[in-house]
Amino acid sequence: MQFELSSRGQDVLERVKAFIRDHIEPVEPAFWAEVRATNPSGDWQHWKVPTILEDLKNKAKEQGLWNLWLPDAELGAGLNIQEYAHIAEQTGRSLLAPTVFNCNAPDTGNMEVLWRYGSEEQKKQWLSPLLAGEIRSVFFMTEPDVASSDATNMQATAIIDHDEIVLNGRKWWSSGVGDPHCKIGIFMAHTPNEGRGRHHQHSMVLVPLDTPGVKIERMLPVFGEYDAPHGHGEVSFTNVRVPISNFIVGPGEGFAIAQGRLGPGRIHHCMRCIGAAEKALELMIDRGTQRVAFGKPVINLGGNLERVADARIAIDQARLMTLYAAWKMDTYGTSGAMTEISAIKVIAPNVLQQVVDMAIQIHGGAGVSQDTPLTGFFIQARSLRLADGPDEVHKGVIARIELAKRNTGETKSK
Amino acid sequence: MQFELSSRGQDVLERVKAFIRDHIEPVEPAFWAEVRATNPSGDWQHWKVPTILEDLKNKAKEQGLWNLWLPDAELGAGLNIQEYAHIAEQTGRSLLAPTVFNCNAPDTGNMEVLWRYGSEEQKKQWLSPLLAGEIRSVFFMTEPDVASSDATNMQATAIIDHDEIVLNGRKWWSSGVGDPHCKIGIFMAHTPNEGRGRHHQHSMVLVPLDTPGVKIERMLPVFGEYDAPHGHGEVSFTNVRVPISNFIVGPGEGFAIAQGRLGPGRIHHCMRCIGAAEKALELMIDRGTQRVAFGKPVINLGGNLERVADARIAIDQARLMTLYAAWKMDTYGTSGAMTEISAIKVIAPNVLQQVVDMAIQIHGGAGVSQDTPLTGFFIQARSLRLADGPDEVHKGVIARIELAKRNTGETKSK
Amino acid sequence: MQFELSSRGQDVLERVKAFIRDHIEPVEPAFWAEVRATNPSGDWQHWKVPTILEDLKNKAKEQGLWNLWLPDAELGAGLNIQEYAHIAEQTGRSLLAPTVFNCNAPDTGNMEVLWRYGSEEQKKQWLSPLLAGEIRSVFFMTEPDVASSDATNMQATAIIDHDEIVLNGRKWWSSGVGDPHCKIGIFMAHTPNEGRGRHHQHSMVLVPLDTPGVKIERMLPVFGEYDAPHGHGEVSFTNVRVPISNFIVGPGEGFAIAQGRLGPGRIHHCMRCIGAAEKALELMIDRGTQRVAFGKPVINLGGNLERVADARIAIDQARLMTLYAAWKMDTYGTSGAMTEISAIKVIAPNVLQQVVDMAIQIHGGAGVSQDTPLTGFFIQARSLRLADGPDEVHKGVIARIELAKRNTGETKSK
Amino acid sequence: MQFELSSRGQDVLERVKAFIRDHIEPVEPAFWAEVRATNPSGDWQHWKVPTILEDLKNKAKEQGLWNLWLPDAELGAGLNIQEYAHIAEQTGRSLLAPTVFNCNAPDTGNMEVLWRYGSEEQKKQWLSPLLAGEIRSVFFMTEPDVASSDATNMQATAIIDHDEIVLNGRKWWSSGVGDPHCKIGIFMAHTPNEGRGRHHQHSMVLVPLDTPGVKIERMLPVFGEYDAPHGHGEVSFTNVRVPISNFIVGPGEGFAIAQGRLGPGRIHHCMRCIGAAEKALELMIDRGTQRVAFGKPVINLGGNLERVADARIAIDQARLMTLYAAWKMDTYGTSGAMTEISAIKVIAPNVLQQVVDMAIQIHGGAGVSQDTPLTGFFIQARSLRLADGPDEVHKGVIARIELAKRNTGETKSK
Repeated sequence: MQFELSSRGQDVLERVKAFIRDHIEPVEPAFWAEVRATNPSGDWQHWKVPTILEDLKNKAKEQGLWNLWLPDAELGAGLNIQEYAHIAEQTGRSLLAPTVFNCNAPDTGNMEVLWRYGSEEQKKQWLSPLLAGEIRSVFFMTEPDVASSDATNMQATAIIDHDEIVLNGRKWWSSGVGDPHCKIGIFMAHTPNEGRGRHHQHSMVLVPLDTPGVKIERMLPVFGEYDAPHGHGEVSFTNVRVPISNFIVGPGEGFAIAQGRLGPGRIHHCMRCIGAAEKALELMIDRGTQRVAFGKPVINLGGNLERVADARIAIDQARLMTLYAAWKMDTYGTSGAMTEISAIKVIAPNVLQQVVDMAIQIHGGAGVSQDTPLTGFFIQARSLRLADGPDEVHKGVIARIELAKRNTGETKSK
Repeated sequence: MQFELSSRGQDVLERVKAFIRDHIEPVEPAFWAEVRATNPSGDWQHWKVPTILEDLKNKAKEQGLWNLWLPDAELGAGLNIQEYAHIAEQTGRSLLAPTVFNCNAPDTGNMEVLWRYGSEEQKKQWLSPLLAGEIRSVFFMTEPDVASSDATNMQATAIIDHDEIVLNGRKWWSSGVGDPHCKIGIFMAHTPNEGRGRHHQHSMVLVPLDTPGVKIERMLPVFGEYDAPHGHGEVSFTNVRVPISNFIVGPGEGFAIAQGRLGPGRIHHCMRCIGAAEKALELMIDRGTQRVAFGKPVINLGGNLERVADARIAIDQARLMTLYAAWKMDTYGTSGAMTEISAIKVIAPNVLQQVVDMAIQIHGGAGVSQDTPLTGFFIQARSLRLADGPDEVHKGVIARIELAKRNTGETKSK
Repeated sequence: MQFELSSRGQDVLERVKAFIRDHIEPVEPAFWAEVRATNPSGDWQHWKVPTILEDLKNKAKEQGLWNLWLPDAELGAGLNIQEYAHIAEQTGRSLLAPTVFNCNAPDTGNMEVLWRYGSEEQKKQWLSPLLAGEIRSVFFMTEPDVASSDATNMQATAIIDHDEIVLNGRKWWSSGVGDPHCKIGIFMAHTPNEGRGRHHQHSMVLVPLDTPGVKIERMLPVFGEYDAPHGHGEVSFTNVRVPISNFIVGPGEGFAIAQGRLGPGRIHHCMRCIGAAEKALELMIDRGTQRVAFGKPVINLGGNLERVADARIAIDQARLMTLYAAWKMDTYGTSGAMTEISAIKVIAPNVLQQVVDMAIQIHGGAGVSQDTPLTGFFIQARSLRLADGPDEVHKGVIARIELAKRNTGETKSK
Repeated sequence: MQFELSSRGQDVLERVKAFIRDHIEPVEPAFWAEVRATNPSGDWQHWKVPTILEDLKNKAKEQGLWNLWLPDAELGAGLNIQEYAHIAEQTGRSLLAPTVFNCNAPDTGNMEVLWRYGSEEQKKQWLSPLLAGEIRSVFFMTEPDVASSDATNMQATAIIDHDEIVLNGRKWWSSGVGDPHCKIGIFMAHTPNEGRGRHHQHSMVLVPLDTPGVKIERMLPVFGEYDAPHGHGEVSFTNVRVPISNFIVGPGEGFAIAQGRLGPGRIHHCMRCIGAAEKALELMIDRGTQRVAFGKPVINLGGNLERVADARIAIDQARLMTLYAAWKMDTYGTSGAMTEISAIKVIAPNVLQQVVDMAIQIHGGAGVSQDTPLTGFFIQARSLRLADGPDEVHKGVIARIELAKRNTGETKSK
């Protein structure tokens, strides 16, 4: 065993850290202030992205700090999942950084789908501008009317009608759909096919957002936060027609693609949570050492120092587990890391939620305001406990694997 | 021992329940929709209260369901703290109901201060319109620049200058200050007095909001929610001058008044939390029985039924503890219920936070939106863990009492 | 509502406290030392009860502090369940006290069964000497070969053969069977009866321990503690024959009797847990204030004072809940207190386990030895989380009731 | 990063697993049955070790599975700390295995002290027979009369008197002192030296157990379990005289040696906890799938499957953290792994305690008996939360390091 990051990864990591420190952190308060001033929640049709974001993206691109998540050495940085995981942690310390490096969800997942499964035509039309950071994308998965934790509940339909696909349905929590640069979506829907099994009844279809019949009904707040200029939309699809070439891979391949899509994305999400938790812990310690109550720094009162230790312990364990999951994916593929992927999907957001809760408590009233990134981190954590499979579903996966091990007499050796 | 509510209390309770069911619940969705449509967060200077609220208030007043929190039989309903606690639980099930019955914070606390400690002149000028529900009020306590959990940190000043008091300082989390009907504040500040002890260095001063030098700097969101049309303000006071008769009781009496103010208010807050937790549990069960995943109602999956039981157990314990605290206050006064008041201040918001977290999880994406009252309840719980003394301060109070008991050889007998 | 104990209950309570303080506590260390010296675990066939116990029992009887659990005013003290609950708390502070007052499990439960359901003959032969404290009894319920949390799993049989009942089967965790004074058991077993429903297939049968075919196979330690001279036995029954008059009520009535038996017994168990938790908290504070580390009393280090508060909060809530359950049983019967009885059965042992764990931690090595009652309390708590229905079964009961409430539209009002 | 065990480590690991499976597991029930039958707790002066243990040790020695913990390639197996950690996990699955491989505490720690710090004479006299498994040893550290979590509290004295050292004091939790083969102890005591700092006031002194003045006062049970034939003694030292050459290193060097002693030992303890937790989880699943209640395997009821997942998640995180701590020790030394060592010392025993608690609950009554290793594992976990620094002390270490990082502006990068 060897826990040192490769020198290749270490080099990129150091440059990312320097970039965040030198270029992102200094402008971030102004960025969010401008976002809040110019993007009223009630007027999401006219949201604007502060222009400084493009400057930052160009600067990052110039430095080669771009599409770092993509293992392809030409299109991306040639890092494996585990090496990139360290980068994702750093970008997770800031709510702005992932976008600057073109490493933000859901675009990375959508790009990964196109990169792995897209036709040449699809790649040319949509992957290229996404990789260039010129447009943004959305993933239409969750539905308001069913329990989406069971994906087979999906009601939206993608029906073949000669050389077109007809899309109908209603999706929500379509993240990023409010961004003025968002142009393309991947629509997951039911394409009934009696001849095939239950995991071949769903398709992924590319749908340009300006196709007739696509309508953003409203933006959804998360605990009151609209996440402008990104947004989470509720979107209706009424007899939306796209060419049959817009299937990714083909009809009925949606679940197979989804499996591939979610693995690395979960590593990214979790490592960003860990970075955010580190940042929250730092804020907690800084605030707690600077403020005095009852004659002592707040951090020295009651059980606060134990909470610092609890946070450190929880974060370090979650990080190791996520890096181990990444390494297993690199080494054995997603199917060789099922327990670990589900485990980190439970752990990382929960650890972030707990650490943020402690940090809020030390901050007092400032902690629940938007004067710190803490509420943003909280919302990220709380939402992620539901997105990409709620905690309970992942625990179910883990338990089933454990029981199967005992049935087959396997002994845990690693 | 006898756990049955008095027939007097039972009668009012039943009428309150009927009123909420018949008059408030049916209009509440429309009320909040109108609030959201007409009160953009960025324009708090022009927030408006939907007119239906006045109708509801008048209807409640007509039915005698008015100022129920006030033990005075003429001005209020003549209920003791414990009897009113049952009412507060019911109003806590709705985010609108407390205001309808003129039983909402911070007005109840401010009215209680004026009722107990105000001069006849102060009562006439401010208590009367507050009791009539014609105006609203604010309590200027917490400050942005110090750890307000230790009230002696307070930096705002109330200095006597001949027959005037000069107020300076900056306050935040001044709840209700955004309401267009909010006219009067109680300002807590330092009035140095070398001759007296450290608990006689602070005063409460009445300050009309239109006094020159009072400036609302901004409204503070809580996890992104501005709580319009009520709002939580950051307010600066620059050489604000009010007549010396605006001291409540007199200079240096702030802490003594604060002690009296906080007791019953904590019972109200906690019982509202319990009502909210009951509502959250109901929503959780209803959602969990209506939605199906993996072939079963969601509520039957994994550990969900155990969570229902955990919620029931936690809520029932918190309710009994709060009612016991109320009974002790009724029987022995606030000073005879120190442990119990601090205990419920820790328990009730934490129970609400936990039950809401479970309920959100069962709701999936809907749980973090504003389509249910869950995020509102969460914000209430999370804020209350900081307001009126953070959890840790109350635990400190309880622990000190426990250690003192052992030192004096007292044996716990109740 | 009124939380004061009745004067009748208060009087007995004070006398019990005085008796424990004056007569039991002073001799308890010597009592247990003698037990340990004279009752080696490997030689349970010759266990002896220190003679001082009889002296204490006689003294208690003389003072009328005897059979206080029995609501019957002539045979017992005429206290209702809730009044006696306060007594049970006090006796729970000592591992010896319950026996001194003839209020110990499982004898109370067995006496209650005989008192409520026994024939005159059965009462004369067995209830009288039990009430007099002359003999002790055992309840043969749990079986080693099945999951006894589901009572219908029971494999032991009680078959009618003319005017006799033939008992076969194997029971364990038969508590008290090692006591040299233990003479009679209640044997719960399957008596197949095709004509009746699944809850009328089991019987309770009186079986004198000296009946041929009854064999104590071994004594079971609990975490290494044999609980001498009381003991928990594994007992085999091979063609044991008793007269048909030994059925309690009659064949097939076992479940009905069991329901009645368990209600008050759970109150007793839970209140004793609460008393034990109070004692553990006292020990924790005393030790933590007397020992110094890193220049401070241990109780002031880290989060220890918060733990004191957590313990106080948990204990007070558990006590109120148990007293409420008792009051509901007194007022509405066992069937009117289903949620509350299951709730306390979960809460009280868990609170005790947690408080003891904290107290052990403050004690260091002494905490895990037998120099304090802490390990005894731990064993009591840990065992009780399994006995009389494990936590999970009780949570299931509570959840089912909650779901039923929503189905019938009932609103929680109390 | 690379999470695969080296082939050298993998080879030994596989042989250890085979040895445990083939030679230890088959005889273990008989071993403990004989221990219990022949070592009554009250007669520890005559405890005997079943002879089969020597057979097993010889067999292990023949296979080269001996002193695997010792990094020295000649005396031990030449494994680094991290490689050996995997072995320790396997031996932790059994309460007997560590001794078979001569890898049991406290002998490993004592041997390590002698190996690193002992004089040639000391090595010849004591290290050689210990490495050969011919004798056993004890570490006299904890004292009954002070809070030993603060080692400077120590009251025992080691005073130089010409060419002798005079030892006085009382120690307890002297583990292994009851073993008939236990011949030598390391006695830690105060050797006042005004000229040196507070961490040079304590010495380690070798004391043969048959030296006049050494008296085992009693054996201490842990939750009633005496841990025969090993035992935990309370031992008094009255004017015990040993030659001055019995100082290890020299007077005043006790703390420096202790630091070195504890690092690897904590890795061993923690990995054994992880192995025990794995075993407990397996027992839990096996029992839960074999027993049926309410028509389903117990493991499928309520939240049990979520508990399986919780256990898996907690164990895997704890293992990774411990392996990481080991790797840091191998790479940067103990002083480079302070946070990690303290973290695992908190995590591993707590995870074991929690997993065992769940496993006990699934087992019902069998879980608290000694029919499974669960109570043994529980006792191991609960004791270890106190030994080698209680949880709270380690959390304090971690918190201090975190605060120092922020003061020096260090950013967490690994």
